Amino acid sequence: MPRSPSQAPEFTWDVSEWLNSPPLSLGELRGQVVLIEVFQMLCPTCVTHAIPQAKRVRQLVRDDQLAVIGLHSVFEHHEAMNPDALKVFCAEFGVTFPVAVDRPSTDGVLPATMKQWRLQGTPTTILLDRAGRVRQTWFGTLDDLVLGVWLGTLLSEDT
Amino acid sequence: MPRSPSQAPEFTWDVSEWLNSPPLSLGELRGQVVLIEVFQMLCPTCVTHAIPQAKRVRQLVRDDQLAVIGLHSVFEHHEAMNPDALKVFCAEFGVTFPVAVDRPSTDGVLPATMKQWRLQGTPTTILLDRAGRVRQTWFGTLDDLVLGVWLGTLLSEDT
Amino acid sequence: MPRSPSQAPEFTWDVSEWLNSPPLSLGELRGQVVLIEVFQMLCPTCVTHAIPQAKRVRQLVRDDQLAVIGLHSVFEHHEAMNPDALKVFCAEFGVTFPVAVDRPSTDGVLPATMKQWRLQGTPTTILLDRAGRVRQTWFGTLDDLVLGVWLGTLLSEDT
Amino acid sequence: MPRSPSQAPEFTWDVSEWLNSPPLSLGELRGQVVLIEVFQMLCPTCVTHAIPQAKRVRQLVRDDQLAVIGLHSVFEHHEAMNPDALKVFCAEFGVTFPVAVDRPSTDGVLPATMKQWRLQGTPTTILLDRAGRVRQTWFGTLDDLVLGVWLGTLLSEDT
Repeated sequence: MPRSPSQAPEFTWDVSEWLNSPPLSLGELRGQVVLIEVFQMLCPTCVTHAIPQAKRVRQLVRDDQLAVIGLHSVFEHHEAMNPDALKVFCAEFGVTFPVAVDRPSTDGVLPATMKQWRLQGTPTTILLDRAGRVRQTWFGTLDDLVLGVWLGTLLSEDT
Repeated sequence: MPRSPSQAPEFTWDVSEWLNSPPLSLGELRGQVVLIEVFQMLCPTCVTHAIPQAKRVRQLVRDDQLAVIGLHSVFEHHEAMNPDALKVFCAEFGVTFPVAVDRPSTDGVLPATMKQWRLQGTPTTILLDRAGRVRQTWFGTLDDLVLGVWLGTLLSEDT
Repeated sequence: MPRSPSQAPEFTWDVSEWLNSPPLSLGELRGQVVLIEVFQMLCPTCVTHAIPQAKRVRQLVRDDQLAVIGLHSVFEHHEAMNPDALKVFCAEFGVTFPVAVDRPSTDGVLPATMKQWRLQGTPTTILLDRAGRVRQTWFGTLDDLVLGVWLGTLLSEDT
Repeated sequence: MPRSPSQAPEFTWDVSEWLNSPPLSLGELRGQVVLIEVFQMLCPTCVTHAIPQAKRVRQLVRDDQLAVIGLHSVFEHHEAMNPDALKVFCAEFGVTFPVAVDRPSTDGVLPATMKQWRLQGTPTTILLDRAGRVRQTWFGTLDDLVLGVWLGTLLSEDT
């Protein structure tokens, strides 16, 4: 199932704020596999499916092998999903992994990282390999078995 | 399973605002069975279980026989769950039935209706019979089969 | 939702054998609501959905109000689903309610009761009211909420 | 999560019959990862969980990389779960991968392979690496995410 990493693009993010963590650079995560869960706190599929799945992944895999990062990419209803509300969301839904706030748009609706990566919406699950390359991107509901096989594959690779 | 309605207390509410509807009085709902879903928009079990269940009930039963009413009873994080944020929640989660905002506390945490009825938290599902009497109150996750049997029973009763 | 019982046909069955019970006549069940679960022990939807649902109904409603009856209607693979194998199935799957074996066909594939009632296959869930009249028949997967409302309705009716 | 394969025992089986396939030796599967689903056709958790999971794994991973093998290990009710009944089960439940029939006991209840491997019961899921070594054994319900991570890990290993 896994495809070749040759030429896979390198992920970068442009975020304005962090929850549950001091600011993290992708550089310091090199050497770990990284799962990025792009979500909005009032997106139904995020709340019922993607966030619980990311929490289960976090519990399953050792955190020196895998980083799980939330990326809150709000493209509508910015006031209701502001960073203070997001803090409440994380507390109530038990999100303890680091959450980055995607930098709000200055001239349109899409926040910076979502725009740069041309993501289709939320939830989007992105897997980076130990070298920081994007290896897989899924939009919408993602099957546990499919995600597991990809995680096991990337965790087995050397940098 | 159903118990006798004799001496069942009559429900009243004290709310400050309505979404999806002009203000409703319990008096004008007499003659219908009423399901009241007490929830908070950032309560996980409400969002993953109780609200979807209330939506399914709304789709299943004719609305001249059954009223489905949300009651947003916020007892913490008031700012993140203010009425404007609640409007966004209802739009995103497809809540189209009337939602009342429980009157905020003036001297404590519990809003007025939640305090008066000594509810334990959210979600709480309350069933009123056609005479406006409280016939059942459940706190937490509620089984579809159990709820269905109670609905069928109350829908079969005369006023 | 419930429809009028006027002119509803009266159910009769033609069975060859009983498990978990001495032979039962529909006449002696008059006065109770009756749920008949028509199944085959090697039918996937029966095993994963309908039989567990019937067991939950049995646990929920008092047995002087509701009779739950299995009807094993085999229309293929008769040898693999013979009455001795059915006994093992009931023991392994925790089916403790009475199970009738539909009388095997003498000149075709359909057993007697399935043929008489022109049932489409398994699982089929049939509800009889307290007067023994067929009030609802569902083929395939049946939603708990829908079944619950019907049960509550029929349990509320007098004979 | 994965543990070291050093000293992992090599699996062998002792079977009397095959369905869906000519007889397979473990030797000819060397070089592939092998998932062995030990089941009984009238075991509830096998039927509702383990067999559907094995079918999904079969659909997900290329069959030149992974072999999925059922092992029917009957330790009770041998008559109801004889090989002819098993054929019907496989047809009805859509089991198209090879299924081996564990050799029946001559002097006790446990069939040969189950006894040799001291398995606790059904369902048991066993993963072999490309060298034929037992790398993981689970008894009972197995989480998709856990299984997926293990599959991805073993699929990434060289022989």
